[in-house]
Amino acid sequence: DAKKLLALPGDGIGPEVMREVLKIVHWLGQARDLHLEITEELVGGASLAVHGVPIRDEVISLAKEADAVLFGSVGDPAWAHVDFDKRPEVAILRLRQELELFANLRPAKVFDALVDASTLKPDVVRGLDIMIVRETVGGVYFGQPRGIETLPDGTKRGVNTEVYTTPEIERVARVAFELARVQDNRVCSVEKCNVMESGLLWKQVVTDLHAREYSDVQLSHMLADNCAMQLVRNPRQFDVIVTGNLFGDILSDLASMLTGSLGMLPSATLGTVQAAGKRHALYEPIHGSAPDIAGKNLANPLAQILSFAMLLRYSFNREEDAALIEKAVSNVLDSGLRTADIAAPGFTPVGTEAMGAAVLQEMKNL
Amino acid sequence: DAKKLLALPGDGIGPEVMREVLKIVHWLGQARDLHLEITEELVGGASLAVHGVPIRDEVISLAKEADAVLFGSVGDPAWAHVDFDKRPEVAILRLRQELELFANLRPAKVFDALVDASTLKPDVVRGLDIMIVRETVGGVYFGQPRGIETLPDGTKRGVNTEVYTTPEIERVARVAFELARVQDNRVCSVEKCNVMESGLLWKQVVTDLHAREYSDVQLSHMLADNCAMQLVRNPRQFDVIVTGNLFGDILSDLASMLTGSLGMLPSATLGTVQAAGKRHALYEPIHGSAPDIAGKNLANPLAQILSFAMLLRYSFNREEDAALIEKAVSNVLDSGLRTADIAAPGFTPVGTEAMGAAVLQEMKNL
Ligand SMILES: CC(C)[C@H](C(=O)O)[C@@H](O)C(=O)O
Ligand SMILES: CC(C)[C@H](C(=O)O)[C@@H](O)C(=O)O
Repeated sequence: DAKKLLALPGDGIGPEVMREVLKIVHWLGQARDLHLEITEELVGGASLAVHGVPIRDEVISLAKEADAVLFGSVGDPAWAHVDFDKRPEVAILRLRQELELFANLRPAKVFDALVDASTLKPDVVRGLDIMIVRETVGGVYFGQPRGIETLPDGTKRGVNTEVYTTPEIERVARVAFELARVQDNRVCSVEKCNVMESGLLWKQVVTDLHAREYSDVQLSHMLADNCAMQLVRNPRQFDVIVTGNLFGDILSDLASMLTGSLGMLPSATLGTVQAAGKRHALYEPIHGSAPDIAGKNLANPLAQILSFAMLLRYSFNREEDAALIEKAVSNVLDSGLRTADIAAPGFTPVGTEAMGAAVLQEMKNL
Repeated sequence: DAKKLLALPGDGIGPEVMREVLKIVHWLGQARDLHLEITEELVGGASLAVHGVPIRDEVISLAKEADAVLFGSVGDPAWAHVDFDKRPEVAILRLRQELELFANLRPAKVFDALVDASTLKPDVVRGLDIMIVRETVGGVYFGQPRGIETLPDGTKRGVNTEVYTTPEIERVARVAFELARVQDNRVCSVEKCNVMESGLLWKQVVTDLHAREYSDVQLSHMLADNCAMQLVRNPRQFDVIVTGNLFGDILSDLASMLTGSLGMLPSATLGTVQAAGKRHALYEPIHGSAPDIAGKNLANPLAQILSFAMLLRYSFNREEDAALIEKAVSNVLDSGLRTADIAAPGFTPVGTEAMGAAVLQEMKNL
């Protein structure tokens, strides 16, 4: 029976990169017997424009019922004037929280064909393949109390609260240790324990869990400021990095920019394993909604396409189809095709549709 | 009458790099009529070893009375087992807070002679000259409530609070706008206003102050995750960056690593202007205590020496002496001398003392 896929293109470049995925899905249905029941819904700026809210409760329900969610991007600054709790970003934040998608897996991988796209020297990044596991339903993103209050003298005070508990830290660290076992068996846990007690607890919980259950994995600890530096100095020293929501946000964006090809990188966000082995999961490109190039057929669709490949592999158990997509992407890159974000200076890039079409054509050829 | 300088070498490589500065001070006293009354005190791990605390109240008092503080580094992990409020880092955190040193100025500058020391391609970083203004007495570093509590079920909960108020944001933004006027007239304010209300307030206060008093300066806003990416993608797009304590910690370390020569970069932390025009100020290298190379005559003393040059310029009004030191450093680099942190592969580096001696000799020659 057909698997349920909820497609949420969002705003900015989301819809145009999602469109290329849907063409691939269509072909997989015809040629490779992939039966998906696809529902498409508006979120972010696109939902604000039509429904006045960044995400409707019905969409949250659909996400809970779906076997997997494929997300585009949100964050159109045209909505910067709306109330804080109605901004486009609430769409992804609510999805993470209500589906308890606590572990965001963000690979930073340098494609051989694109080693020159990095601003770092080729010798520093060649072969780079790290995985950042970012906690996504806790920390300062969701802690209470929060808000802006006006003081008696008319000035204001903005407050947010960083909170982490033992179980929240343990479950995301567990994901990191399990991943390390199938990667290079090394985990680096990142916090700011020299300044923050929440970071001190983080370090203690990770250390204890490691001693109890994962002592076969090599564990190290690093302060967040040092990690930012080390990612620039010598990124290949890392295998799996595990960190909280806010540090993960910054460090994973930094790590992906090291690859020089932000438009290439997919991500998966996983929930807890539930009864009947079901696990909520959302897949999205690491890049944002890039409003400056939206609607111009300039965006790189590969991160969205590769996010769909991850979805096929992890949520639908369709390894062969996933590998087919990845191989097609790799061949298209080897053939020299480039969108603007990954094109060398002086090289004429192709648009979103041409890149999507080239991947699909290569899938047919393979 | 003599100016009062409080020298606080700290732990790790702090004492050995401070020693090179003191030789320069000695010579400036003899040859160039610089009269300083120098007091040296233990802080960080060095104070813990002797006094059992990271900084004594007497040292805080001395810092308040001094005309300027020259700080080395703290953070020896040998003290990682002590109580959270006794860790070495408390020394610098208390100094910042008790002297209200709210604006940390961290230049990220690429020295022409060292453009190849960066892991970034020379074309990306050549001529880089940005200034990060980091708020240093607020935010999540000092907000209450904070701590680790044990819950009824035996698990724990770590909490920290991010707080910013209108006046705290205004005063540091003011420093950034003033600096921009003597630099390239551009300020980029960095927060995470799409997730944190404290960041939303930050953005509003900076925007309002700009409209009221600094509309001649070009102001832009950027999210912290995007800023980390943009610093790698195209760092020269920035002039002055102003941001909060935690983002500033991470982004300034990242920015300094772009220069490839962390051991080269000084910083100044300024307090409010008080009665009689006096202003507390502390100068310190951006690098940490680097315990792995401490005591081995391997550390680069130039960041500490350049921090002293900043001190002469900003706190003692000795522009000529400051310029003399900076010129000597620049000449020594041009002559090819390198400590290990900035040496090209295969090049034989010199030690801490030899580098310090070379700078002093060049000062004598000039
Ligand atoms: C859109 C925004 C709320 C989000 C975040 O900060 O988590 C984004 O930057 C990300 O990294 O997925
Ligand atoms: C030593 C530590 C407390 C400090 C900080 O986090 O502020 C350091 O990293 C710095 O940047 O000066």
